Amino acid sequence: MAKKASTASRRTTEASDRRRRKGEEGFVWKRKDLVGLDELSGEEILHILDTAESLKEVSTRSIKKVPALRGKVVALLFFEDSTRTRMSFELAASRMSADTILFTSKGSSVAKGETTLDTVRNIEAMGVDIFVIRHGQSGAPHMLARKINSSVVNAGDGSHEHPTQALLDIFTIRQRLGQIAGLKVAIVGDIAHSRVARSNILALTKLGAEVVVVGPPTMVPSAISPMGCEISHDLDEVLGEVDVVNMLRIQFERFSSNLFPSVREYKRIYGMGSDRLKRCKKDVLIMHPGPINRGVELTSEVADGPNSCILQQVANGLAIRMAVLYLVSRHRR
Amino acid sequence: MAKKASTASRRTTEASDRRRRKGEEGFVWKRKDLVGLDELSGEEILHILDTAESLKEVSTRSIKKVPALRGKVVALLFFEDSTRTRMSFELAASRMSADTILFTSKGSSVAKGETTLDTVRNIEAMGVDIFVIRHGQSGAPHMLARKINSSVVNAGDGSHEHPTQALLDIFTIRQRLGQIAGLKVAIVGDIAHSRVARSNILALTKLGAEVVVVGPPTMVPSAISPMGCEISHDLDEVLGEVDVVNMLRIQFERFSSNLFPSVREYKRIYGMGSDRLKRCKKDVLIMHPGPINRGVELTSEVADGPNSCILQQVANGLAIRMAVLYLVSRHRR
Amino acid sequence: MAKKASTASRRTTEASDRRRRKGEEGFVWKRKDLVGLDELSGEEILHILDTAESLKEVSTRSIKKVPALRGKVVALLFFEDSTRTRMSFELAASRMSADTILFTSKGSSVAKGETTLDTVRNIEAMGVDIFVIRHGQSGAPHMLARKINSSVVNAGDGSHEHPTQALLDIFTIRQRLGQIAGLKVAIVGDIAHSRVARSNILALTKLGAEVVVVGPPTMVPSAISPMGCEISHDLDEVLGEVDVVNMLRIQFERFSSNLFPSVREYKRIYGMGSDRLKRCKKDVLIMHPGPINRGVELTSEVADGPNSCILQQVANGLAIRMAVLYLVSRHRR
Repeated sequence: MAKKASTASRRTTEASDRRRRKGEEGFVWKRKDLVGLDELSGEEILHILDTAESLKEVSTRSIKKVPALRGKVVALLFFEDSTRTRMSFELAASRMSADTILFTSKGSSVAKGETTLDTVRNIEAMGVDIFVIRHGQSGAPHMLARKINSSVVNAGDGSHEHPTQALLDIFTIRQRLGQIAGLKVAIVGDIAHSRVARSNILALTKLGAEVVVVGPPTMVPSAISPMGCEISHDLDEVLGEVDVVNMLRIQFERFSSNLFPSVREYKRIYGMGSDRLKRCKKDVLIMHPGPINRGVELTSEVADGPNSCILQQVANGLAIRMAVLYLVSRHRR
Repeated sequence: MAKKASTASRRTTEASDRRRRKGEEGFVWKRKDLVGLDELSGEEILHILDTAESLKEVSTRSIKKVPALRGKVVALLFFEDSTRTRMSFELAASRMSADTILFTSKGSSVAKGETTLDTVRNIEAMGVDIFVIRHGQSGAPHMLARKINSSVVNAGDGSHEHPTQALLDIFTIRQRLGQIAGLKVAIVGDIAHSRVARSNILALTKLGAEVVVVGPPTMVPSAISPMGCEISHDLDEVLGEVDVVNMLRIQFERFSSNLFPSVREYKRIYGMGSDRLKRCKKDVLIMHPGPINRGVELTSEVADGPNSCILQQVANGLAIRMAVLYLVSRHRR
Repeated sequence: MAKKASTASRRTTEASDRRRRKGEEGFVWKRKDLVGLDELSGEEILHILDTAESLKEVSTRSIKKVPALRGKVVALLFFEDSTRTRMSFELAASRMSADTILFTSKGSSVAKGETTLDTVRNIEAMGVDIFVIRHGQSGAPHMLARKINSSVVNAGDGSHEHPTQALLDIFTIRQRLGQIAGLKVAIVGDIAHSRVARSNILALTKLGAEVVVVGPPTMVPSAISPMGCEISHDLDEVLGEVDVVNMLRIQFERFSSNLFPSVREYKRIYGMGSDRLKRCKKDVLIMHPGPINRGVELTSEVADGPNSCILQQVANGLAIRMAVLYLVSRHRR
């Protein structure tokens, strides 16, 4: 299981998969929004990955630009800071020739007591086609998607979902390991508060992967199990049997501080260094959503080593976001 | 007076008006700047509205883009925060293919002791064609317009003018009620400190409308009357006779707090709810420059009801700003 | 020495110089990065000036736009605030049709403990062609340039270099005085902490100009002399013999406060007013990198007078930055 296919044979497989899917089913994207992976079918998820696959090539051109979204307006609404997700969406939009406009909640009418819905409806009235929304409250993009006519893409909401992050993770796994079904993926860290973990678990299980979540009981409560994943509090126990290890970021700046005794302790029990890497499968894929705390979740040796695909994840993020913006802009009801 | 014309007949009227004006007068826009409505003639105001009328259609296209300002640079200089005005101008500029560049006074050379004029002259030297300027000091855009060669568009200066807001208000009134002349418009709120009120009064009276300003004596001092409008401290007294009610925003974040006893009191005396709406003319138009304080100036029932044109105002703001940017960029001396 | 050539003959000289250089040497730009002027040859510096000369014309067109960088991405990474340098680079990039993306360190992953190198590598993975980097630490752009594949342009690093500022200064001198070799240039102010001074000294001496640095001993330590410039603590002593006086900004907001007794004292001893100007050569060129403290480094009479070229410097900054972005994007190894 989970053998890393040779590049050539992998590509052939993917191309034929793609042809098969398109031929047999003539897939038509029907969703106005991408608010979460919970509501998507496995087939829809694969269609996003396939679309990203064909858009990925644009970023390798000398002139990195296609007119797919020319004359469309993509509004980036960041009620929470997230520089890299904002940049990734912004570049994805402009790579497809969309006009982008940025809204951050600092110094804005949010401070003037306006409701989020009023803010968004106002911006919509200016002729926005797609809203990319990052919001501190779980469910905010879903609420907005129901109330407005423009498309809504969730760029992370509270502890709920971060669908494009999970899609880019899965896209990267497929690219490196050739498939998703049958793989076993460990997600390590503060599962309870992680929208990245949630979206990954949802999508991976839909595509036929097994997921084991790993962390201290404060971060991996038993309530997580109904999502269809295994639970472990011992990283060393699962290392030998997984194909992918996705190390979540410890968010020192947020709520994590009182969830474990100390950084040193966390690192000792859940950090990935070269010792632990040796006990993994040879082709194990080491992932991290970034920004990484070097020496905490990963040592530099591991982060920059051959099993890591961290920068590939970032590059794939652009292709995934281009695909999502493209699909919602062309949805047919 | 002020009957709402049927959509069809209204359009015919407007089109013939337009033809007449252009045919008879061959109107040529001569102003480098739009700093206030005080200096504009009624004819100039109507010319902006007519230009906006023909540019409005661009925003309904699938590819919302015309090359009118290609290769021109529009600098957005916000010495004061105003997210929605900034976004409206920014989208207006990019809808006409201009390049935009944003300057906010935070962390800028303003903090380094440079004068506003030096800041603007420096940016002008970089090859800026049009400055859109929001400034806390009344008269700042006027001073700058006289000193620089580039065009200056006032996006709100102190308590002085906010010409594009008044233009979009009047554009919306004409769209909904078919005409301006002969209407009676109530403006309700803190008239004394409101640039929106000032610009509206100036333009409405030039176009032959009657204006009544309404609010507590602290907000509607008698000094306002030389502007050619009626004064009232009793909203209920004027409700039955007006065609339009423009509810100003109570700016809790600014100076309004000591101008009235309490929010509850303000709402009771000057708020617009469904009771008051019933005492208005059937087709009365309810306006608000936004962002609204739901439950204060307006109840949600009124804000989202059929008499409200709040979101239409926002949409029209884009057309007005496109028109203004277009006209000043083509002015002939 | 340093006679101001007539405009016509100067242009002829420059054009033939340009032809000669191109004809004889077929100059090919080989550098991926522009991190400092220290590593450039005089010939490379002149090639940048010549490229700027031919790109300057674009900014005078009605449609200020060429497709030279279409489909390229220029990321503006400002780890330190600098509104005008950011705007100049941003406009330079978009004047050549590049897509730009802005990163400032406020509220970004820098705050989340990520290293600068990880931040930049992540953004590079999104498909960025050129990084324009302003950083508080001397040497940061150099380190990054060695570690990444994209081009790096230094927009000011600590007290080290600000190469595009010096290039635009020298470009302006050449434009106004016809040549660099043989001129004598005074640089006045806090030389010890000034990257502008450092880059100017490096480039001017490479091009055959003499430099004298002037300021109180706290700002002009003797350690500066190995750079190949004269030192003076008495402005009046050097005034009569220099062709250019470049007045550095006193950075009240930074470290300058304890380097001299008082602003009044500084102004009296090192400020440039009309009295001092009278003691200069008739065609002396007065420069300032901006933003100016009117009444401190320069009186308004001097700043706005015929010897000043401050706004020309700003305009030329755009041409220089266009040239630099263009050259690094086309470098051949």
